[in-house]
Amino acid sequence: MKNLDKLCIHTITTKPWQLEKAVEKYAAAGVKGISVWRDTLENRNIVQAGEMIRNHGMEVVSLVRGGFFASTSLEKRRAAIDDNLKAIDEAAALGSPLIVLVCGADPGQSMSISRQQIQEGIEEILPYAGECNVKLAIEPLHPMYAADRSAINTMSQANDLAEQIDSPLLGVAVDVYHLWWDPELQQEIIRCGMNKHLFAYHVCDWNVPTTDMLFDRGLMGEGCIPLKDIRSWIKEAGFTGYTEVEIFSHKFWAEDQDQFLNKIIQSYLHHT
Amino acid sequence: MKNLDKLCIHTITTKPWQLEKAVEKYAAAGVKGISVWRDTLENRNIVQAGEMIRNHGMEVVSLVRGGFFASTSLEKRRAAIDDNLKAIDEAAALGSPLIVLVCGADPGQSMSISRQQIQEGIEEILPYAGECNVKLAIEPLHPMYAADRSAINTMSQANDLAEQIDSPLLGVAVDVYHLWWDPELQQEIIRCGMNKHLFAYHVCDWNVPTTDMLFDRGLMGEGCIPLKDIRSWIKEAGFTGYTEVEIFSHKFWAEDQDQFLNKIIQSYLHHT
Repeated sequence: MKNLDKLCIHTITTKPWQLEKAVEKYAAAGVKGISVWRDTLENRNIVQAGEMIRNHGMEVVSLVRGGFFASTSLEKRRAAIDDNLKAIDEAAALGSPLIVLVCGADPGQSMSISRQQIQEGIEEILPYAGECNVKLAIEPLHPMYAADRSAINTMSQANDLAEQIDSPLLGVAVDVYHLWWDPELQQEIIRCGMNKHLFAYHVCDWNVPTTDMLFDRGLMGEGCIPLKDIRSWIKEAGFTGYTEVEIFSHKFWAEDQDQFLNKIIQSYLHHT
Repeated sequence: MKNLDKLCIHTITTKPWQLEKAVEKYAAAGVKGISVWRDTLENRNIVQAGEMIRNHGMEVVSLVRGGFFASTSLEKRRAAIDDNLKAIDEAAALGSPLIVLVCGADPGQSMSISRQQIQEGIEEILPYAGECNVKLAIEPLHPMYAADRSAINTMSQANDLAEQIDSPLLGVAVDVYHLWWDPELQQEIIRCGMNKHLFAYHVCDWNVPTTDMLFDRGLMGEGCIPLKDIRSWIKEAGFTGYTEVEIFSHKFWAEDQDQFLNKIIQSYLHHT
């Protein structure tokens, strides 16, 4: 019988709740994992926030998010490095073993240059991540975000990059929303697992029709993503970590968040 | 000096104009090619429409569009075949050498089943296309349309399908809007040309940000697509046909269409 021991929720999923409320509600519902978005840590003692989470019997799965390495501006690239080093400090303070990277893109330059800057950025922050015992996960983003959010848009590319940099600290976060359409997804998930690069697994669903390119993600089971197939590939790849629910949705954020949390749990149990 | 001899415009690009007006305006501006959307032929004598186009010194480049082969419903799949046979009749009557295929997808079934149905559908209509001397082009669609418009989302997949069916009547339509983000695009365009499958080339631009998933295409030069790079790959692949401007845009459709036509021509001359 499936239970909630491997269910993790991203704080952005229940955006109307402050961090303290999210922790209290998730814990009361039996959820064991939480991925913390950095905005929820603003004006807080981050060490105490981590303790509060653990005192509720929960585990921090990841800090979201670092990255955004690509820019035509050298100044912005330097600022991105500084911000990633800050994120590593935050992850260490919070007790998060992982930071998810949205790698970045700049429509003012070619994607190959953006990809080179992403590689250089990751290589530059990796030593400090190692010192702080924090891992990094490249999250490939859907091609509809290729212009301005990430020049890494398939598992194949993420695997290539992780293998090229070749560090035990660097892996890949698989998010079904970004990757479900790719005919090579199964083989690339297996490849990722074989190379010990499969660090995180994010779920939601793809609504048909999708009415907004950012804020219309569906609850698992509502859309067309073959969640159980992908789950089986993730398992075949050797992944035993949390299933992380990450939903951006104006519709769900406008609902009663207690009822929404219940829907998340039911859809996790029945559709993932 | 670049001229307009290889410029083609899709009738949908200047949607407010009826077919007759579009032909008159394109011809007066020196445009030599037109790709005709089927809705513009409704309630018209199609043979006479083709003659009208040729009498204006223009050439029909393609009929848009057939396809939509994938469905959970057998009845709908049969209806799609019938509609594609009708499109072949229309292309022959119009004097169009090519039909562009938006292959279809159904969120109620797996993409691999949709892809199988697409292959079967194309194989079923190919003999009649041959009798009518009409070619077919698979148009891979952006992954954001994978749920409900096309299960063929990369050049690699389109090339695989064209090579598997292996008919001189079947090729691929490259549309930069759908494919620009793909790191394998250059090699797959070259592969397509080497196999004599490169049948059509469509341009527009990707706006940053994009505000609508269907109707916010940009004019060439406005967005982030590396049009001159892709043009060089198309040329390297041996393609000598028309560059087809296909823009769906609520913004441009609301403008004065004469001024818009002038912008199209200028952006074609300077940015493609």
